[in-house]
Amino acid sequence: MLPTSLDKQLPEGVADLFFNDAARKRAVERTLAETFIRWGYSEIIPPMFEYYEALAAEAGPQLREEMYRFFDRDGRVLALRADFTIPIARIVGTKLFDRVMPLRFYAIGSVFRYAEPQAGMRREFTQAGIELIGANTAEGDAEAIALAMTALRALGLDDFRFTLGNAAYVQATLRDLALDAADLAALRETIRRKNAPALAQFLATRPLDAPQRDALAQLPMLWGNAEVLERAVCVNDAARAAVERLRAVVAQLTHLGLQDMVTLDLAEDRGMAYYTGILFEGFAQGLGFAVVSGGRYDNLIAHFGPPLPAVGFAIGVERVMMLQRARASIAPAVIAQAYDARVATARACGQVVEVDVMNRADDALRVYARVRGAREIWWRDGRVEKLG
Amino acid sequence: MLPTSLDKQLPEGVADLFFNDAARKRAVERTLAETFIRWGYSEIIPPMFEYYEALAAEAGPQLREEMYRFFDRDGRVLALRADFTIPIARIVGTKLFDRVMPLRFYAIGSVFRYAEPQAGMRREFTQAGIELIGANTAEGDAEAIALAMTALRALGLDDFRFTLGNAAYVQATLRDLALDAADLAALRETIRRKNAPALAQFLATRPLDAPQRDALAQLPMLWGNAEVLERAVCVNDAARAAVERLRAVVAQLTHLGLQDMVTLDLAEDRGMAYYTGILFEGFAQGLGFAVVSGGRYDNLIAHFGPPLPAVGFAIGVERVMMLQRARASIAPAVIAQAYDARVATARACGQVVEVDVMNRADDALRVYARVRGAREIWWRDGRVEKLG
Repeated sequence: MLPTSLDKQLPEGVADLFFNDAARKRAVERTLAETFIRWGYSEIIPPMFEYYEALAAEAGPQLREEMYRFFDRDGRVLALRADFTIPIARIVGTKLFDRVMPLRFYAIGSVFRYAEPQAGMRREFTQAGIELIGANTAEGDAEAIALAMTALRALGLDDFRFTLGNAAYVQATLRDLALDAADLAALRETIRRKNAPALAQFLATRPLDAPQRDALAQLPMLWGNAEVLERAVCVNDAARAAVERLRAVVAQLTHLGLQDMVTLDLAEDRGMAYYTGILFEGFAQGLGFAVVSGGRYDNLIAHFGPPLPAVGFAIGVERVMMLQRARASIAPAVIAQAYDARVATARACGQVVEVDVMNRADDALRVYARVRGAREIWWRDGRVEKLG
Repeated sequence: MLPTSLDKQLPEGVADLFFNDAARKRAVERTLAETFIRWGYSEIIPPMFEYYEALAAEAGPQLREEMYRFFDRDGRVLALRADFTIPIARIVGTKLFDRVMPLRFYAIGSVFRYAEPQAGMRREFTQAGIELIGANTAEGDAEAIALAMTALRALGLDDFRFTLGNAAYVQATLRDLALDAADLAALRETIRRKNAPALAQFLATRPLDAPQRDALAQLPMLWGNAEVLERAVCVNDAARAAVERLRAVVAQLTHLGLQDMVTLDLAEDRGMAYYTGILFEGFAQGLGFAVVSGGRYDNLIAHFGPPLPAVGFAIGVERVMMLQRARASIAPAVIAQAYDARVATARACGQVVEVDVMNRADDALRVYARVRGAREIWWRDGRVEKLG
């Protein structure tokens, strides 16, 4: 056995949570679970690890690279789950495909992704998300977005904005281009960086027809309120359908009074392998990265079973915790000198009562009760002492 | 990438939980957390994996062998947590050793142990347990046992029995024997199997003095109610102190009216590396293995920092679920045809309302609502329809 080095007891990217931090994390998770349940979602709990081949199949190269892999003793490769979307797609595709649709699931728990030490990112982090399965409708898209917004508000976060795009629009616009793979990758990257001059220069040197060139050159400017949907150039029916879907989703969000929280961004395609439709991210004031990220993935479940459309999102629980200032109290209401009938009754009624198991002298117990923040001491002889 | 084999989508020993099963699991966890909190325990959340060397240090050969190990990308060996006691000991020993004592922590979550496929055991399973740290008193021992019993009752399990032993008694009785390691191992095993004739035969052929021989020969019979404490032969002060501690714990449990649930068993030493004092297991009617298992380990935290006594237990959440017949409802109260102000208000008040996102015709929506078990349909035009 290696000696334990006292200076480095924990690997990078994982954390110990206790006292206030643990209570705050559970409070966030509880608030999110309650919100999801009220919208008709029930919990699904995939295993913490399963076969790598199942998790990796549709994961995209980056996520695949970040997965923690290890060998089962029969020689097959296992991996820790890196998100909830893929395991839930496997469960639905193999076990629940014949149920009445839609299925509404939520999942809350740890996911694991390797990150370089310099990045300061967590390698075990907590996602809380939903998947709405079986409904390929604008109502379904809008429910996912509205639920994400409602969840952030339930957490006390009001100062947030969402970006909304449609992976199908970028995909349709790029679909018929006469470009090789390297050019296509460079083009996607230039679009993503919204560098309009570089994009124009790139396009000028490639063999594209005029409508294609126009559509692509426009992309970095298709950013703002609903008016950008009027400016979008559509090179084919798929692009037109993608814009129509966004228009219908925005109409739904307007009906819900949520349109002011949304900025459209038609250049967004997230680079994630499995997204096929709307894409959204939620940003809160004071945080440089998204607290919620989601989208539609209509081809993922088909990898595991019959095709079923789906839309979902994940909220980063640790990211929410960075935004919240509130403290969760873990102080007991009462310190009891001995375990007696009063203690049992109070606990049965939900009160937090700590019994002294150190056999402290009266004075020491009084000091201890104050340190712990208790409101009362219940002495062995039946007296109740209120603490100021 | 390997092809996905549809017949074998999940590794042995892990499970997908959804619908009623997931709701029941969370209900058990919530009941346990609420019970622990009322007794003054606050949550601690160790990482899902950490350095193998930290988890393995005091784990005993069997637990060490069962750990899931994998490499970090810097070449160090990581392991999935195999219990909560060892990570909590690490946290307390390295970060919390200078706090006012006692510390009371609870932890609920997955732990991972490899098991042979034939055994039919879970490899990812859920423990819910507590650790009471800093109090080496009979009151502390009794609190752990009483809390375990209270937790089982809160779960609706009333028909249970606890066995109670003291690892220190077996250790003290074996301490000064002139036996080699192989003989000692054989002796422990014979004691554990409570095979009195085989034990007598074994002892007759070994160079032991009379009191030692008497104490060992008695061990398999030291099983029953408090009267066994009078019959225990003590070969040294440590053995006497171990019996005295059990007497004090039984007195506490009698004061709490719990003595009838307890069977003493002085031959028990669990074979676990880190136990130093009382040991207990809880068995419920209708289950062939313990639902709760715990004990005192006063030397474990010293591996990571200053020495601190501790006592704790873990409840097997899946085992509890095997005993419970109750179903947890996941039916929505209301199916709403469209998302309107009523829906938002009802959800804000805690009601479960599912909105149709499939644009179902009225008749189809009515069928769907009945399938889902909803009590009401709220139609788009404002009508409320009660379902029988």
